[in-house]
Amino acid sequence: MRLIQQIDEGCCPPLLSAPLAEGDAAGLARALRVVADPARLRLLSMIAARPDSEACVCELTEPLGLSQPTVSHHLRVLHEAGVLDREKRGRWVFYRLNPEPLRLLRAALEPAGATVPS
Amino acid sequence: MRLIQQIDEGCCPPLLSAPLAEGDAAGLARALRVVADPARLRLLSMIAARPDSEACVCELTEPLGLSQPTVSHHLRVLHEAGVLDREKRGRWVFYRLNPEPLRLLRAALEPAGATVPS
Repeated sequence: MRLIQQIDEGCCPPLLSAPLAEGDAAGLARALRVVADPARLRLLSMIAARPDSEACVCELTEPLGLSQPTVSHHLRVLHEAGVLDREKRGRWVFYRLNPEPLRLLRAALEPAGATVPS
Repeated sequence: MRLIQQIDEGCCPPLLSAPLAEGDAAGLARALRVVADPARLRLLSMIAARPDSEACVCELTEPLGLSQPTVSHHLRVLHEAGVLDREKRGRWVFYRLNPEPLRLLRAALEPAGATVPS
């Protein structure tokens, strides 16, 4: 079993359209747990508030008040899930918000028959 | 601190509009954890698939393959969070989906500036 759920088209069946099979429910729960964490929510909100929705890891540690290894761990979880893209530029790694996984999570929580615009 | 987060207007600030304060992030994380559980997702999907989106606890235990105390625990979490309304009729308790908390969770995950229709 993947410890970190990649949030893609396969992960997130609509919750309210039909009874979820056990495996589908487990995958959707893992996808939701990626964002159900205070430190990861704060990181996402801080990155989203930056110009171009991107930030250097060097800009995130101090305002969060957590150690650099802890921040790096949470950024890695968000990157492996697909919520953040990463790019190395010189000596720093930059993270940028990828809106698609959050759209998939919203779509999974839609009422039956509804669709979320891309 | 509440162990079970009630999912109401106060719980779920938009994630992507501005950096989240520590307390807001903690509340939103607790709200997301209400649904980030495989058994609770399956219960919600089973109840949503019923006529009028409601089910007797007596109809939920067997298809879920969990013990009645375990099912009752998860139903209580969903009820205390506001995701399920409950009503006693004769000897049985019925649970009905309340769509508003899931709408609030979707709204919290919206892109900055977007709104989710009620």
